[in-house]
Amino acid sequence: MEPDLVKLMQALIDVAEGRAPADLVFVNARIVDVYRLRVARGQVAVKFGCIAGVLFEGRDCEDASVPAWEALRVVDCEGRYLAPGFIDGHLHIESSNIRPAEYARMALSRGTTTAIADSHEIANVCGLDGLAFMIEDASRAPLDIRFMMPSCVPALPDEQAGAVITAADMRAFMDEYRGAIFGLGEMMNLPGVFGADEETCRRIAVGAQTVSGQVDGHAPMTAGNDLNAYVAAGVIADHENTGVEEALDELSRGMYVMLREGTCSHDLVNLAPIILENPALARRCCFATDDRAPSDALNIGMIDNACRVAVEEGIDPVVAISMATLSTADVFGLDHGTLCAQVRRGAIAPGKRADILLLDDLAFTAPPHRVYSAGELVAEDGAFVGRVAPVASRCGLLGLEGHLRDTVHLPKLSLDVFSYEFRPGEAVIDVLPGNAVTGMAHPETDEGLRRIMLIERHGRGVAAQGVGVDGDGPAGAGLAGKHIGQGWVRGFTITGGAIASTIGHDSHNVCVVGDNPADMLAAVEAVGQGGFVLVRDGEIVAKIDLPLGGLMSDKTAEAVAREHDSFMGAARAMGIEPPLDPIMGMIFLPLPVIPALRIRPEGMFDVTRFQYA
Amino acid sequence: MEPDLVKLMQALIDVAEGRAPADLVFVNARIVDVYRLRVARGQVAVKFGCIAGVLFEGRDCEDASVPAWEALRVVDCEGRYLAPGFIDGHLHIESSNIRPAEYARMALSRGTTTAIADSHEIANVCGLDGLAFMIEDASRAPLDIRFMMPSCVPALPDEQAGAVITAADMRAFMDEYRGAIFGLGEMMNLPGVFGADEETCRRIAVGAQTVSGQVDGHAPMTAGNDLNAYVAAGVIADHENTGVEEALDELSRGMYVMLREGTCSHDLVNLAPIILENPALARRCCFATDDRAPSDALNIGMIDNACRVAVEEGIDPVVAISMATLSTADVFGLDHGTLCAQVRRGAIAPGKRADILLLDDLAFTAPPHRVYSAGELVAEDGAFVGRVAPVASRCGLLGLEGHLRDTVHLPKLSLDVFSYEFRPGEAVIDVLPGNAVTGMAHPETDEGLRRIMLIERHGRGVAAQGVGVDGDGPAGAGLAGKHIGQGWVRGFTITGGAIASTIGHDSHNVCVVGDNPADMLAAVEAVGQGGFVLVRDGEIVAKIDLPLGGLMSDKTAEAVAREHDSFMGAARAMGIEPPLDPIMGMIFLPLPVIPALRIRPEGMFDVTRFQYA
Repeated sequence: MEPDLVKLMQALIDVAEGRAPADLVFVNARIVDVYRLRVARGQVAVKFGCIAGVLFEGRDCEDASVPAWEALRVVDCEGRYLAPGFIDGHLHIESSNIRPAEYARMALSRGTTTAIADSHEIANVCGLDGLAFMIEDASRAPLDIRFMMPSCVPALPDEQAGAVITAADMRAFMDEYRGAIFGLGEMMNLPGVFGADEETCRRIAVGAQTVSGQVDGHAPMTAGNDLNAYVAAGVIADHENTGVEEALDELSRGMYVMLREGTCSHDLVNLAPIILENPALARRCCFATDDRAPSDALNIGMIDNACRVAVEEGIDPVVAISMATLSTADVFGLDHGTLCAQVRRGAIAPGKRADILLLDDLAFTAPPHRVYSAGELVAEDGAFVGRVAPVASRCGLLGLEGHLRDTVHLPKLSLDVFSYEFRPGEAVIDVLPGNAVTGMAHPETDEGLRRIMLIERHGRGVAAQGVGVDGDGPAGAGLAGKHIGQGWVRGFTITGGAIASTIGHDSHNVCVVGDNPADMLAAVEAVGQGGFVLVRDGEIVAKIDLPLGGLMSDKTAEAVAREHDSFMGAARAMGIEPPLDPIMGMIFLPLPVIPALRIRPEGMFDVTRFQYA
Repeated sequence: MEPDLVKLMQALIDVAEGRAPADLVFVNARIVDVYRLRVARGQVAVKFGCIAGVLFEGRDCEDASVPAWEALRVVDCEGRYLAPGFIDGHLHIESSNIRPAEYARMALSRGTTTAIADSHEIANVCGLDGLAFMIEDASRAPLDIRFMMPSCVPALPDEQAGAVITAADMRAFMDEYRGAIFGLGEMMNLPGVFGADEETCRRIAVGAQTVSGQVDGHAPMTAGNDLNAYVAAGVIADHENTGVEEALDELSRGMYVMLREGTCSHDLVNLAPIILENPALARRCCFATDDRAPSDALNIGMIDNACRVAVEEGIDPVVAISMATLSTADVFGLDHGTLCAQVRRGAIAPGKRADILLLDDLAFTAPPHRVYSAGELVAEDGAFVGRVAPVASRCGLLGLEGHLRDTVHLPKLSLDVFSYEFRPGEAVIDVLPGNAVTGMAHPETDEGLRRIMLIERHGRGVAAQGVGVDGDGPAGAGLAGKHIGQGWVRGFTITGGAIASTIGHDSHNVCVVGDNPADMLAAVEAVGQGGFVLVRDGEIVAKIDLPLGGLMSDKTAEAVAREHDSFMGAARAMGIEPPLDPIMGMIFLPLPVIPALRIRPEGMFDVTRFQYA
């Protein structure tokens, strides 16, 4: 490693000093200087994917449009802004329903050149093989995706997920995939941290052995001594703040605050006053998308969209860019935590990775004019123009992909399992559209209610049937209350059919909602090896195939966006009106850590009392 | 390592959550919050030398004077400011002429709790044994001194220093002293960097293997592509800026700027406008003392003095403190580059080392009321009250000290060597008092001139005499122009005697200036195993013993300060008038990298043409 470091160092110095030609020189640029928080005319030399030199007009050169270095290629920026590539501080690729190489195409087209990804979802389905798939697939594309180790698989110890990942498992994986794990992913087991649980603390300590050494957080509404405990444990950042006061609480304790602007969560407008009141706090604030649907990403943007919102709220555009680049780099030691110029990033400066955006203006209303990843042109005006290597080029990737294509193991089901009775006064989920939190109601009749079921799909139900759990009864009847949860939901207004999904946070069992048992059974049967399914009067009227782990399509972002639009159209025709989102409105209903009432394979779960209803 | 991390984590969490008592709770404090750049009333809990929790009045507790945690001891701050301990970004302990454990006493009494020390001077005398001595001696005292690996020993390849330290030597030392080297010390071989010299780049690459991974800099007046080359090589900080424009050049390139406020160099006033114009740039600016005489340190201060000057210049005191703490921590990854709370520091926040200052006000005109290092009270109102372990407590330290006490190996000298003739028109050093740079004059007579000599003291002269270099001539005559430099100086007005020193930057050969050969010989003979000597009419009228490497006293800082005062008095009585400093005015005259004319053991050296005069 060290001789390469020396060679790279010498190559960059030789270019800077004019003894060797640059690979690329950008002239006639307005450089966004995130260190001094200014824009200045200048030119930039690139060698081996790194910035070798920056010269500013007036101070360093007479005319920024005249190349000061010899170069294999000169790019005339025509006075455009030249900014560092964006760093997305926290995101789940699986939430975009596309595979990593495809996510890379999409993200690069919007100026994200580094993505800090937590593969929590696929890990809940396939364990560390799922993470290995993500790492290998990501390596095909020119987006630098840095993978965090999922810290909380399963989300609760007794969840019926597809895997359990212990601290020991994490260390074994990191021994095998040396240097592949960038940090520990969002620590969301808050009771485990507050209680100083041994295994939880051991998992946090794994963070010390990762590349960045950082432990990411997830701590909504945490304050006082719980927050002290959480920060004392070493958690460095949080993307779950929705209000200024809780964000300031975390800043005071030394946490970085990630202002989230995703598809479901739009926290930036609420948090912008922090920066507006004192722009110096931008030092400790950055951006994250967390979860981003492809249609939003392609049409509205990703971190560029966060910058747009920030600027609309009145934040200085250069400060916004510094948050989207240098501040995120600082969270993870990417500015200068290593000596290698191919790793350092987050600014237009010598010895940094040449992740470069050319922008027509600083309004962020359109995709970047051009995006360079490590000095290579990868996107132009929103279109990806880089190279993605074929799957076959990655040894082992096809095998891992094969594993991901075999993850839906449903038990045999009969119509009887779907035909349960409503019991007057029982607890039902009260959907609050656009809100992750639900209410809990106790109606006396089933008027306006729909059936909701959660069917274990990782093989537990299949195994139980193998040893005769159903006895002489109908198929699946013996699984009810054990591996098949049955309940009712209010406010999920699907009519004349059913919707089913292999995505159901975080264990990703099959979730189905409908107004009649037959369509529900049909929808569940139609999910196959993964997807969203809409059944109306016995017919499949829309489907998005998600064959990879039941979470990800193997199609392009554009294709998935189109499928999503047409799925939405079909759902709207079945009585699901805005603001209720048929997909987002359903897939979080099994998440047993968000109040008030949730569905689990064992039945309805009262999160407020942490017991079954 | 990892199980300890878990145990520490659990202990801090248990204290924060009130399940275990704190070692110490500070109540009724005005907490200086460097993250949010504010002051807020609150209380702080400490366990195992780390901060376990911080609660702010109003938001987290009703009354900051009522302990929210059980504690073995409660400290009532009586409304005082509670700030993080200062981090000195760059300094040479040897320049204070005291040993590390003694430096620790002095620095802690002024609120410095972390010192980033470059042992460049002792390494030039004793090589890596000198560094080992510094590390071992420092471990006796409760100041956290982080040692950088001297990068440029000797300062020039052909310097007659006491040691050569190559990249291979550095790596071997780091293998032996695992975890003891914090970073690479100031890279001052600028031609080596600009020229991409192989050995120079290898030395920089050693930085990657240090604890912080950082490479510190030293690049006065470097701009344009030289600066690009320097930064592309990976250098992260510079303390040599004297003007705003050159500092801004470095900030733009991603370097941290250390605003130096030392004994010889007072750059802070000149650089303060950077922060005054945009306080957000404080993120990339910090403080360093570089070289600090004990009398200044004890009477005026160290980093606290830098804060004082900053505030006098109009910088917000909380911003000044953030520069003296968080910003320096950020340079070296001390804020969150590691997961260990005993290492993290630079703020009053959970999971940070409990380096804490109690301040009566934010004017910094007096020493801190109290200083805590890792939760231990070490200073009160300028007096050190902590514990320093005896030398014998450190295995190997006595042996290393023995080595340091045997470093002055002068050849035999006769009066003839001192009685050389002045040649009309020859180049003489023109001292510019208070300025490191000298002039060069070519006078026709020796009127107003003094003799200056530099005598190699690392054994080369002794060895040459051993093989008969003097022949039948007077002792030392054969060494002239080889290991004894002879010349003349103007403006160094010592009268009726001579001054000699075993400190002569950076190779630390014996330097002597006088107006007659006899007193010069007497002064050189009187240096013994190290010191500053003043001889008048054949008698020693003042002496500061520096028996450790010829650089450091083994007395207290207070004693050295007193000796220094009395030495100055004697020098003033011999015609040395302010602003000329008899010590500082002499010890930099051998430094062969500062223009214009210098003395070397080979003779007078014209730095402007880089050849002997």
